[in-house]
Amino acid sequence: MAKKTKQKLKVMMLGGLGEIGKNMTVLEYGNDIIVIDCGIAFPDEEMPGIDLVIPDISYLEANADKIRGILLTHGHEDHVGAIPYVLRSINPPVYGTRLTLGIVEKKLSEHRLPNVPELVCVNAGDTLQLGCFHAEFIRVNHSIADACCIAVKTPVGTVVHSGDFKLDLTPIDGKMMDITRLGEIGNRGVLLLLCESTNAERPGFTPSEKKVGQSLTSIFERNADKRIVIATFSSNVHRVQQIIDTSAKYGRKVAVTGRSMINIVGAAVELGYMQVPDGVLIDINEIKKYRPDQLTLITTGSQGEPMSALSRMASGEHDRVTLTSSDLVVISANAIPGNEKLVGKVINSLLARGVNVLYDAVADVHVSGHACQEELKLMHALLRPKFFIPIHGEYRHMVNHKKLAEFMGMPEENVLISDIGKVVEVDKDSMRFNGTVPSGKLLVDGFGVGDVGNIVLRDRKHLSQDGLVVVVASIDMEQRLLISGPDIVSRGFVYVRESEELMEETRLVALNAIENCLDRNMSDWMEIKSKVRDDIARFISKETKRKPMILPIIMSV
Amino acid sequence: MAKKTKQKLKVMMLGGLGEIGKNMTVLEYGNDIIVIDCGIAFPDEEMPGIDLVIPDISYLEANADKIRGILLTHGHEDHVGAIPYVLRSINPPVYGTRLTLGIVEKKLSEHRLPNVPELVCVNAGDTLQLGCFHAEFIRVNHSIADACCIAVKTPVGTVVHSGDFKLDLTPIDGKMMDITRLGEIGNRGVLLLLCESTNAERPGFTPSEKKVGQSLTSIFERNADKRIVIATFSSNVHRVQQIIDTSAKYGRKVAVTGRSMINIVGAAVELGYMQVPDGVLIDINEIKKYRPDQLTLITTGSQGEPMSALSRMASGEHDRVTLTSSDLVVISANAIPGNEKLVGKVINSLLARGVNVLYDAVADVHVSGHACQEELKLMHALLRPKFFIPIHGEYRHMVNHKKLAEFMGMPEENVLISDIGKVVEVDKDSMRFNGTVPSGKLLVDGFGVGDVGNIVLRDRKHLSQDGLVVVVASIDMEQRLLISGPDIVSRGFVYVRESEELMEETRLVALNAIENCLDRNMSDWMEIKSKVRDDIARFISKETKRKPMILPIIMSV
Repeated sequence: MAKKTKQKLKVMMLGGLGEIGKNMTVLEYGNDIIVIDCGIAFPDEEMPGIDLVIPDISYLEANADKIRGILLTHGHEDHVGAIPYVLRSINPPVYGTRLTLGIVEKKLSEHRLPNVPELVCVNAGDTLQLGCFHAEFIRVNHSIADACCIAVKTPVGTVVHSGDFKLDLTPIDGKMMDITRLGEIGNRGVLLLLCESTNAERPGFTPSEKKVGQSLTSIFERNADKRIVIATFSSNVHRVQQIIDTSAKYGRKVAVTGRSMINIVGAAVELGYMQVPDGVLIDINEIKKYRPDQLTLITTGSQGEPMSALSRMASGEHDRVTLTSSDLVVISANAIPGNEKLVGKVINSLLARGVNVLYDAVADVHVSGHACQEELKLMHALLRPKFFIPIHGEYRHMVNHKKLAEFMGMPEENVLISDIGKVVEVDKDSMRFNGTVPSGKLLVDGFGVGDVGNIVLRDRKHLSQDGLVVVVASIDMEQRLLISGPDIVSRGFVYVRESEELMEETRLVALNAIENCLDRNMSDWMEIKSKVRDDIARFISKETKRKPMILPIIMSV
Repeated sequence: MAKKTKQKLKVMMLGGLGEIGKNMTVLEYGNDIIVIDCGIAFPDEEMPGIDLVIPDISYLEANADKIRGILLTHGHEDHVGAIPYVLRSINPPVYGTRLTLGIVEKKLSEHRLPNVPELVCVNAGDTLQLGCFHAEFIRVNHSIADACCIAVKTPVGTVVHSGDFKLDLTPIDGKMMDITRLGEIGNRGVLLLLCESTNAERPGFTPSEKKVGQSLTSIFERNADKRIVIATFSSNVHRVQQIIDTSAKYGRKVAVTGRSMINIVGAAVELGYMQVPDGVLIDINEIKKYRPDQLTLITTGSQGEPMSALSRMASGEHDRVTLTSSDLVVISANAIPGNEKLVGKVINSLLARGVNVLYDAVADVHVSGHACQEELKLMHALLRPKFFIPIHGEYRHMVNHKKLAEFMGMPEENVLISDIGKVVEVDKDSMRFNGTVPSGKLLVDGFGVGDVGNIVLRDRKHLSQDGLVVVVASIDMEQRLLISGPDIVSRGFVYVRESEELMEETRLVALNAIENCLDRNMSDWMEIKSKVRDDIARFISKETKRKPMILPIIMSV
């Protein structure tokens, strides 16, 4: 026992810090590990060609025998998306609520895994004993149904992980965030709070999802003569429910378009998370049977994704839906940071087609799923944790969340802003950094996981800036003779037809460089290539002020 | 005379419609043309490697003898930046206020032009007779000093071009937008208003620039112990003036960093647009002589530009300034659409260094330079134009501006949302589209203007997504023998060292394809290349689910 009491709880973030997305928190005590969430991030403009980003889980792989379970707070991509990749190398049981697991199952069906995954369904209020950890799922509100935060009793005290949350006093499914239970846990004493920080810069309370329903009602009333097309996040089951309800109320049929929207609506109806009055839902192929004013379409594409259903409608390329001035498009979403221009393009294209468009800048058609400052304060006030680690947000959000905690009276030294891979050690009296574990981003590109790294990305960026000039020549090294070439091939550099002179001069520079090397009896291939590359780069930079990638390929014949 | 009265005024936009930037308006009547503004646009993510975008002015080149002048409303890049490129092929006199021309002169000094440009300085209130056009410069407020709108008496009626504007009732230089003169012109009758639309989605009035001064005062008071570093737009002379004034008031010295900030502050002081109390401005090399609380630094980089002074400070790479927790950085700007993530990165990096940061999401440190809805209404109400063309903004902004005009009572048919290159014909009674003129975007990349087009951009994008695989082989076509190769070289595709097997298999696919062609007596180079390309693309797609650019280079030996 003496040894045990000296042990500390290790808290490690393998994702969800300093960046949006890719949430993964690891709690370790003695021989037991639990993992909370297992998300992906989407690539930014520094990662051209990358499909998605998953956490480096080498630490979990090395400690696979200790892992008692993966606990999922809710079904968003940045919390569950990496499950199919993570379960390739480790296979602990995965716990989550019904909708969350429904989404995970759908994902897993698209991947081949070495082992059968063990998915265990829990309800809000359920508790699990996982090694030395006693975990309790507690209902929160969020922009997806069936979301929970998780309270974990550990040998050193209770740790609460907020997941993503907001407080909705008028939730669509009638299930409010269980602040009573959180208060009880707070009264029992909380050692450490890990709390999301997404909206930590925003004052006040996040409005209820029901507010969007009110807006929809007035939009439907004012646009009774038009077909109404609404784009939103497919995972926002309650938003979709409100669209369906409002449509039914005004006698409209509802058709769904976009793969993920069709999938999620199907799953949500099947699992009982969405109630559709009989006869309201119709197939997209049936819309021709109805007048515009009898129809609502629900679609993907609220982020302006170029291949989404809404983008195809905006560019006139959707095979079922042609939009005109008798349509109203409602973009019931906000642009996720980085997507502003894509969303703007879709709005502009729709307006240029004469379509009526409502979006967040001109109408109340969206509310956030994340807690604003007053709700964050409520979480802190109910739990009154001794220690606090802000999570899930950019660094700026975590800093503002830290300030908020300090404003509420928490001593500065009891707050740690952590970083991915840092180990935070906690016991009853202290919290401090102690070392690191392997961590980072694994880039997924097609089938490849982790085979694209910094050098490959750097080359992609270089190629995208000024393109490429390839110089090919065959040399008979023994006779020191240029057998063929040099030929110049370029891509992404200049219009070759209009730059024939430049290309010919470039060829002469290459020819000179090679002959010079042969004359000087140079025989090191790398040296010859390097001479060709340097001479051409210098020439092109002087002539064009550009720096294409120069790729000399000298073949020995 | 009979002929003359039948003539119509042609209004053509060669820029400034449906997109931010690149403003250029052409008015033509009979043998006379005047051009209002001559701006660049900045490239978006669809234009990798492009430095800037200028308007296609073929129409002006073809009608050079008719052009009576280029009139500049103010000195921002999107209104004057293309002057050095446009004056390469046409050379009409250029009219603008003193600060505007000061900025243009600075630009021209960095370019070599075939002719000496004729720059003519005007003051607000001045009028010019340019052929049949009588133009009057009228003061407006904006985020740069010395900005004007332009009223043009034409043979068919008065046309007013708003430039960029806001109404500032407490302007820093005491020079309020001349709404009295606009009212007089309105009373005389206005045929057509061309009015900017940037903030047409925003209700209310844009706050006065002076409000930022109030915020600065309270920031300086609350941070009396810290060095204060303020990033803003270098062209916002009044913002910089307020920073200098507040610094002087609190006994701080001011140092300026960043090339464009040093240039503009120099020019503004020289031209009398900025007043600096004696001894306040110091060289950046002198900052070591002062304590942090005695210093203010003014810097570029408010858009998170990767090479700017602020970004270098944030990454610890600025050679003069090392930021710590005894510094406060104020980003006194908003992120221009598309720059949100870059600005966010700089904020996060600064915070991660322990630096205190204030920015628009958490403090009142910026006001817009553009009219919000009530100011747009004021412009319409004073001028009461018969016809209206919204300009300068994305399509969504122009649509909202059109709605605003209709809300004020303008008949829908009196508003035209135009497009670049469309000719709008106007006379006393009518306004309608009639044909088009050549127009578009010319992409500037290094020294090249227009030599990068869609194919080059498409290749750059392709290269950035999955990189490149080059296949080189030498063939003796007469003997139908493979002499050397095939060799495979890739860039931006995969880590070659970790993918040796894949690269070797790719080489074998190429070898098979070539030998297959030789066996089948194929002799068309294009066919052989095409076979090699297709086989490799299919193989790589199957193995990796990626689509790199495949570049087969087959040399004849």
